Formats: sequence, C-alpha cells, structure tokens
Amino acid sequence: MSDRTIEIPPTAKLRLDSEALVSNWRVLDDLSGAASAGAAIKANAYGLGAVQVFRRLQSAGCQDFYVANWQEAAEIQAYTDESTNISVLNGVRPEDMPFAVTSSAKPVLNSIEQAKRWLPTGRPCDVMINSGMNRLGINTSDLIDFVWHEMDIDIVMSHLASADEDVSQNANQLDQFKNALRHVSGKRQSLSNSAGIALGQAYHFDCTRPGLSLYGGKQRSEFDGIIRQVVFPEAQILQTRNLKKGDKLGYNAKYVAERSHTIAILAMGYADGYLRGFSNTGAFYIDDTRLSVLGRVSMDLIAIDISDAPQLAESDWVKAQFDLPTASLQSGIAQYELITGMGNRFIRYWT
Amino acid sequence: MSDRTIEIPPTAKLRLDSEALVSNWRVLDDLSGAASAGAAIKANAYGLGAVQVFRRLQSAGCQDFYVANWQEAAEIQAYTDESTNISVLNGVRPEDMPFAVTSSAKPVLNSIEQAKRWLPTGRPCDVMINSGMNRLGINTSDLIDFVWHEMDIDIVMSHLASADEDVSQNANQLDQFKNALRHVSGKRQSLSNSAGIALGQAYHFDCTRPGLSLYGGKQRSEFDGIIRQVVFPEAQILQTRNLKKGDKLGYNAKYVAERSHTIAILAMGYADGYLRGFSNTGAFYIDDTRLSVLGRVSMDLIAIDISDAPQLAESDWVKAQFDLPTASLQSGIAQYELITGMGNRFIRYWT
Repeated sequence: MSDRTIEIPPTAKLRLDSEALVSNWRVLDDLSGAASAGAAIKANAYGLGAVQVFRRLQSAGCQDFYVANWQEAAEIQAYTDESTNISVLNGVRPEDMPFAVTSSAKPVLNSIEQAKRWLPTGRPCDVMINSGMNRLGINTSDLIDFVWHEMDIDIVMSHLASADEDVSQNANQLDQFKNALRHVSGKRQSLSNSAGIALGQAYHFDCTRPGLSLYGGKQRSEFDGIIRQVVFPEAQILQTRNLKKGDKLGYNAKYVAERSHTIAILAMGYADGYLRGFSNTGAFYIDDTRLSVLGRVSMDLIAIDISDAPQLAESDWVKAQFDLPTASLQSGIAQYELITGMGNRFIRYWT
Repeated sequence: MSDRTIEIPPTAKLRLDSEALVSNWRVLDDLSGAASAGAAIKANAYGLGAVQVFRRLQSAGCQDFYVANWQEAAEIQAYTDESTNISVLNGVRPEDMPFAVTSSAKPVLNSIEQAKRWLPTGRPCDVMINSGMNRLGINTSDLIDFVWHEMDIDIVMSHLASADEDVSQNANQLDQFKNALRHVSGKRQSLSNSAGIALGQAYHFDCTRPGLSLYGGKQRSEFDGIIRQVVFPEAQILQTRNLKKGDKLGYNAKYVAERSHTIAILAMGYADGYLRGFSNTGAFYIDDTRLSVLGRVSMDLIAIDISDAPQLAESDWVKAQFDLPTASLQSGIAQYELITGMGNRFIRYWT
C-alpha cells in the first residue's frame, strides 16, 4: 500500500565536520613530535562512522588505524591501500583465525596464548604489554620464555590508564613499558593515547594512538583551544506551545513554569543518545541564542525554552550545545559515552 | 586481499526472549481489563528490533502499534495486515505528507496545524490531547473551534506524565482528558502507558499503550513477579589474568586489588550500551556464580572478578545481570536508557 521509494526527510541530524576532524589529527600528529599519530577508529569511530573517518584521515596522511575486533577490520579494509596498517586491539580468538589469516589487518597479541596461536601463520602482528593497567596485555614476566624473534612484529605497545591525570601511575607505566622492551622488539613502539600525547616526548616513542581527541574530546587542558568540535547534533521542532505559571512539563514534572513562556518540542531524545543526564541542564542554540532544555529528556522528545527566540516555529532546526567538555559537565556523562552513544535515527552527514 | 565471505563469530550477543515478550504483552493485556493492549515499538522497539518485536506481538494478537516517526512506520508496514493499526506518535510534518498519504499508518495529530494539514486527505488519524504533560498534544481550549466531525478519527488519546508515582497529577490528567473528550470524539479512547495500566480501570478506556514493561521494565511494584526479563546481554572472555595485592585495574585505577585473585576481560563495553555507570557495581554470571564488575567499564572491555569461577578461560561466555530494575539501581541509569542504548555490535538473537 505504501510507496517506500518516497523520501522521508530526517527529524534529527548529526553534522560531522571533516575539516575539524582532519585538523585535530594534524594537531595530535604535531604534538606527537617525531612520532607519527595513528587513529583509533574502533566502535564505529566512536560512533561517527568508521569508513567515513578512515577515508578522511587516510587522505590526510594517517597510516595506522586501530579497531576493536575483526568485524570492524573487515568493514574498513576494502578501503585500505599498501601504506595502511590496521591493528585489531582485542587480539585474535580461535574463532577469528579463519578470517584473520586472510585479512590485511594484524592482531594485537594480548597473551601468550594468542602469540602461540598466531606464530604458525608467519604473518605480521603487534604485541600489547601490560605495563600496569591490568586490562589486556602480556606481563613482562611472561615475555621472557617466548620466541618473539620468530615473529614478524610491527608495533610493541602498551596502554596508559590515567594519562588524563597527573599521577605517578603514568611514569610507572612508562618505566614498566621500557623494562618490557628489553624482552621483545618490533619495528616500532607505541604507548600514548590522546591524553598521553600531552605528557611529552618521553611518552611518544614511534607512533601514538589518539582516539577521543580526534573527535573533539579534551581530557586535558593542553587541548583547550586547539582541539575542535567535530560532532554537531541538530534537531527539528515538532510543535511549540505556551506554558502558564505553574504548568508542569514532561515526565515526573521535573520542570514547573515559574512564569508564562513559550517552549518547543524537539524530535530527539535519549533513544538518539541525548541522555536523561541533560534533563534541565542541556541547551540548544539558534544562532547565538541559548535555548535551555526543560524538564526530563524523553525517549524521542526534548522540550526547550524558546522565550528568547519567539520566531521559532514548527519545522525549524536548532543545534545542540555539544562541545564535549561542556556537554559532559552538563550531563554528568563522560565525553566518550556522549559520542559512542549517538543513535541510529540520526542522519550522519559530513561537511 | 581478505575474504569477506568467511564468518567472524560475534564477541557480544543480546539474547531476546520471545516467550517473555509475549507473556509480558498478555499480562499487560489482562491487566488492561476490557481494554485491549497495544504495543509501543518506537525507537526500534526500545532497541530490541522493531520488526522482530512487531511480528511476535502481532502473532500473539496485538493490533495497535505505536512508532515515533514515519521512518519507523515504513520499516514495519511491509509486515502488517488488515487488522494492524500503526500510529505515528510524533505526528505529521509538512515534509512527511508525500509519504504519509501513501502509508497504511496514521498520524497522531498533536496540534491544530497538523489537524489542518491532515484534514484534506480524508484519511484516518489519531488525536493527542494535552492533559497536563505539556509535551505533544492539543490543549482542550484549542479543541473547540475545529471541525473534528469531518475527520476519520480512530483513537483520541493523551499521555500520563507520572504514572510511575502515586501523585495527584494522575487524577488531574484523567479529569483533563475526560473534559477534552466532550469536544472531540473518535472510535476509541486511550490514556495509559505501561505504568498507567496499573492505576486501575478508570485509566484503561478502550486501549492501552504499554512500552517499557513489554521489554521487562518495572516502574511500579504491581509488576513484580509478573513481568519477565526479555533482554539478556552475553559477553565473551578475551583473556584472564592474575592480580596481586595492590595491583591497579583499568582507567584511572578505580579498582585496586586488596588480595591476589583472578579476573577476566570481556569483549563488551560502553560503546555497546553497557555504560560506565556499571563501573565497580555491575555483575555478570556463570550459572549461579556472581562475577562482579571491577573498575571502570571501558569502551570495548569490562573486567570481572572470577575468583569464584576459576574454571573460566578465554572464549567462555558469561551473562550480564540485566534484570532492569536491578541493573538500573546498580548503574544509576534509567531502565529505559539501559535498553534503548544497546549498541550495534551486539548480535541480537531470539529464543
């Protein structure tokens, strides 16, 4: 009965800024000094779209890409060329082997079990050292008895647990990593994520692995003013209405009007990843006018105050305040979660 | 270079329980008394999969389905039959009209503007009354001057803001709704969401619109023991390791071992929707043994204590504690957000 060929325009959009993404990568590459910056594009490039991010950063000169698993590697490897390296951070399970041995991506070997599994393939790999985060990776004490010289190792790496803080754990991990490098060697060495890049040259080694800051996240003050916002949610007004003094708004009446004013209802909600943490704290904008989120964010709807923008009407579009450090403070949600949680109803478009 | 035809088995699964889903709908239909229960399947059926939920509930006898927008209507209407009613809760925008007039779904008219837009089509519709939530819907005072008798109205409805609480707002909204019904009439009337069903017969009218409780959510004690869990996340162990007393684990060392013990690292994280709120509070299970989440949940990884299940090893699977009220208490995340946020890396499979 219906005609599926008729276009239904979106009600919520995620504008993604190519220039800002590439600029952030260049900034992180520069901050990495003599080391070259790669790019963590796991989790669908933190929710932005792995293929789209990959192609933009590849064009900019990025050669090392990090994904979580082989499904993610498979998604992008059709777009790779001979200068591209893809590392699969979660390593290689027994059931990954049939695909992995056909793939141009390489596993990051996180355990002696994985190393034994990969050794017979003779294929390239990376090795993850546990330098004190105690998540994935091989303990230094377990490195000693393995035949690493028989393997084709590209990057020997470790991962910093607290690079967004100035704590002794960072220097301890650096020491542990250096100690481990006496027992295993590859073509290259790598330690730093986004925040680690800001810790200085001692942490850079041959290549760095920024993630969050590529996408506009700032976990350290060193990134203020140089890392740009990449993700810009936009929502459409479904309806405007007038509240009278005392009127309750939304679930559990978390907003009660203290005066008469006008509100707009937006077609976006926590099912899109704009979580309830923004209730009564988030904001949208039209031009430079701030429009406060009122009451509790619903699954598919958000109410905003349009007292200061009375021209707004049904079908108009407004932009979320979504500078990641600001939005994280507003919502109490980590910068990482704010972007990885962006939902499927958004139309993602790159400018 | 790679062979994309080789299967890569998943690392995280979302088991969805058909029997529990259907049972929950029947319970809610029974609790609705003489009214018939529909089903809110907006937001991809709260993250479970709209088509899959639709087909199961349709087979069980459900006839009224509620989606947020016309994209969601389009996704399921290929599976509808003549007894199926689909209501589009966010109404009909000007740009929806070309598709909407070809669709078997009907808009829920939320404003006089939308009513004027739909009137010339002569097609069926629902009407949303604002009875005090002040989100979408038509104020009673605005009902009076419109030619409702010229429209083919199926359901006249309103929406309860605080049905999960025993507050006077519920009775106030009921009164407001009844008052509005003097000015507009359709074939049927509807007021209650999941929680509203538990408020009793006065709130049932002709049809109810459960959502969260279909999927295992319990916002009121009336649902204890009769609403079943539907969503069961399962994660695979990538690696096990031993911690020594004093060892730090994960980002920002949010867990420090007080004794030597064994942990496992799971291939699941907040990018999958298992949010950081579960850090140091969530749990997984193997059989009846509880395995506490340790430290901060990472984007793609979770650490759990396997002291009490020393047999666990790489490639084994464990199940998240995900009874929604319990998981909500553990994480501080609303039951709704827990399921709508489930990510795309999960393989969803129905049993």
